Amino acid sequence: MVESDRVFELHRGGKMAVRSTVPLSSRDDLSLAYTPGVAEVCRAIADSPELAREFTWIGHTVAVVTDGSAVLGLGNIGPRAALPVMEGKAVLFKEFGGVDAVPICLDTQDSDEIVAIVSAIAPGFGGINLEDIAAPRCFEIERRLDDALDIPVFHDDQHGTAIVVFAALRNAALLLGREPADLRVVVSGAGAAGSAVSRMLLAGGVRDVVICDSRGVLAAERTDLTGEKALLAALTNPRRVTGGIAEALRGADVLVGVSGGTIEEAAVAGMAPGGAIFALANPTPEVDPAVAARYAAVIATGRSDYPNQINNVLAFPGVFRGALDARAPRITEGMKIAAANAIAAVVADALTADAIVPSPLDPRVAPAVAAAVAAAAGS
Amino acid sequence: MVESDRVFELHRGGKMAVRSTVPLSSRDDLSLAYTPGVAEVCRAIADSPELAREFTWIGHTVAVVTDGSAVLGLGNIGPRAALPVMEGKAVLFKEFGGVDAVPICLDTQDSDEIVAIVSAIAPGFGGINLEDIAAPRCFEIERRLDDALDIPVFHDDQHGTAIVVFAALRNAALLLGREPADLRVVVSGAGAAGSAVSRMLLAGGVRDVVICDSRGVLAAERTDLTGEKALLAALTNPRRVTGGIAEALRGADVLVGVSGGTIEEAAVAGMAPGGAIFALANPTPEVDPAVAARYAAVIATGRSDYPNQINNVLAFPGVFRGALDARAPRITEGMKIAAANAIAAVVADALTADAIVPSPLDPRVAPAVAAAVAAAAGS
Repeated sequence: MVESDRVFELHRGGKMAVRSTVPLSSRDDLSLAYTPGVAEVCRAIADSPELAREFTWIGHTVAVVTDGSAVLGLGNIGPRAALPVMEGKAVLFKEFGGVDAVPICLDTQDSDEIVAIVSAIAPGFGGINLEDIAAPRCFEIERRLDDALDIPVFHDDQHGTAIVVFAALRNAALLLGREPADLRVVVSGAGAAGSAVSRMLLAGGVRDVVICDSRGVLAAERTDLTGEKALLAALTNPRRVTGGIAEALRGADVLVGVSGGTIEEAAVAGMAPGGAIFALANPTPEVDPAVAARYAAVIATGRSDYPNQINNVLAFPGVFRGALDARAPRITEGMKIAAANAIAAVVADALTADAIVPSPLDPRVAPAVAAAVAAAAGS
Repeated sequence: MVESDRVFELHRGGKMAVRSTVPLSSRDDLSLAYTPGVAEVCRAIADSPELAREFTWIGHTVAVVTDGSAVLGLGNIGPRAALPVMEGKAVLFKEFGGVDAVPICLDTQDSDEIVAIVSAIAPGFGGINLEDIAAPRCFEIERRLDDALDIPVFHDDQHGTAIVVFAALRNAALLLGREPADLRVVVSGAGAAGSAVSRMLLAGGVRDVVICDSRGVLAAERTDLTGEKALLAALTNPRRVTGGIAEALRGADVLVGVSGGTIEEAAVAGMAPGGAIFALANPTPEVDPAVAARYAAVIATGRSDYPNQINNVLAFPGVFRGALDARAPRITEGMKIAAANAIAAVVADALTADAIVPSPLDPRVAPAVAAAVAAAAGS
């Protein structure tokens, strides 16, 4: 447990600041950095807008945008209360990716307004990291922004999680001597993370994915599914499983929990022996690691006090660093797969059941991810 | 002249960055600054929104918002080309006021949209500095945002200029042995700066203000005046002058040029002898300083290579620092007058015709302005 006093003391005054990267101590300095010198740079960009990448901070800057509707496990706490998380995200961007990130907390939860606002502020940023926006609105907002803008748009709760889960699955399969294509995977949770994880597993070669939401398996028979869930039902569940999580888990090799609920031991007991359980809810994993250990050979959580922490910080700093370096107009499926492979590769040489993903503090990760993402952007 | 090569070299990569103000090098650090620790701070702010001032960066942060419609003397060059100026502004905020400022460049010039967007992003900032938004839209946008938000909103092109001009006028009057109430002042230009300068002169005790736009004196007889200009015509011109700048200047003690045009020597020659000329257009003053010297005892420009540079940097860093320190919900007329008096006071002990305002680099100015503004906010 963290101590409350230390947390509040650390947060006093916030966690970030801006700084000048140019000297400002003489009249000559001011005449170069501000008027009259700056007018030349403005004129050059007005003539050739692509020069903004070179002569403004947008080449290394992203907006971290939230509407405060799905913050951590706290839910819809609004934009003001979400700001400490966005500042935390911003300083992690800087620390691990050298990316300058600015929190933008929006006082609206209307999708049309969010799309309009983010489009309007986009000229001042090199990328948009959407954060803690509730499903299903997050899907539409991301899709519309991705279509509208010529800079990368990335909903981290979806794709950051999916990238790290896929990296972990790749290494778990390697360790278990299995091919991703032959695994039966159950994803518990059909929100932002569950959707993106499932889509990425499919894109990465897993064929048998079964998704459960709170009402049971996403299946063609379900008449209550719309939007993203209906699409997912059509893409997954090739064996046409029906029922709840217990039915889904029967004979499954891998469980990915991104739901926040608790999964009964009786359901977990039905899994094929020697598989993997990723129970990612924070602070309480869907399956207690001690229980999971009875049924699976590889266990991962979202927590820092257990081995194999699935933490988005392994992905987002390097993903944006690579996309910005490559001046990529968007983050493609190929770039996400490349990021996951790069994360997995960092620990591939020394693979053990307690180290299927690198530590969130491993300084090798972000540069490797950035290089892989930039290469994939160009290909 | 500044050298083009040096300007572009200095601007490579932009002029600013963000930095973390908390340690991030251990798992313990991450658990305090990010999950799980940060959730406690979020919960506290959700319960008591005013705690955001204490535990996020909004206590020291402003957005520098532009639509790129009236950038320096360059005009409507749009949001991308405006960014170098906004970055320059941001680093001046930091250097002189210790204020963390973030450029927000908007891809719209619709007043309703700008008001909606700035209102929506406001939760993440402690103040809004509007910048380089064209008149007359700037008046409506500022008024509506000032009404809508509970944080300071300040259009620097209006009020920053007005504050420094008023400081200069106060010291010029002192030097000339005149009372502001007895001066005849002509303001050439009825845009953002001209309007705010005129209103501040009136608020500061000047009674005889005559404003000229490109068509001549703003007078009750003019049938082409609407909005702000019509309001100004009603507030000024007590002697009911008609005609152009030459008629306005006949017998005037002070000329404040904020128009960007050139004023003929013949018109300037009609001024009362021994007065003051502030010719603030950049890079070309409305009256050449050599010409002005024939007709006035005190001369100021906007340029760094002449004495008495009227530069907004004397005002905005301290104004926002003071408003943020006082947690003021708005910047009142009293706070602006206090800022002007504080700027004037810095050089009052050693007043000469070549030093009616401090140097833009004078480190005494921003703290003095901040203290005066904070005191005025509380009164």
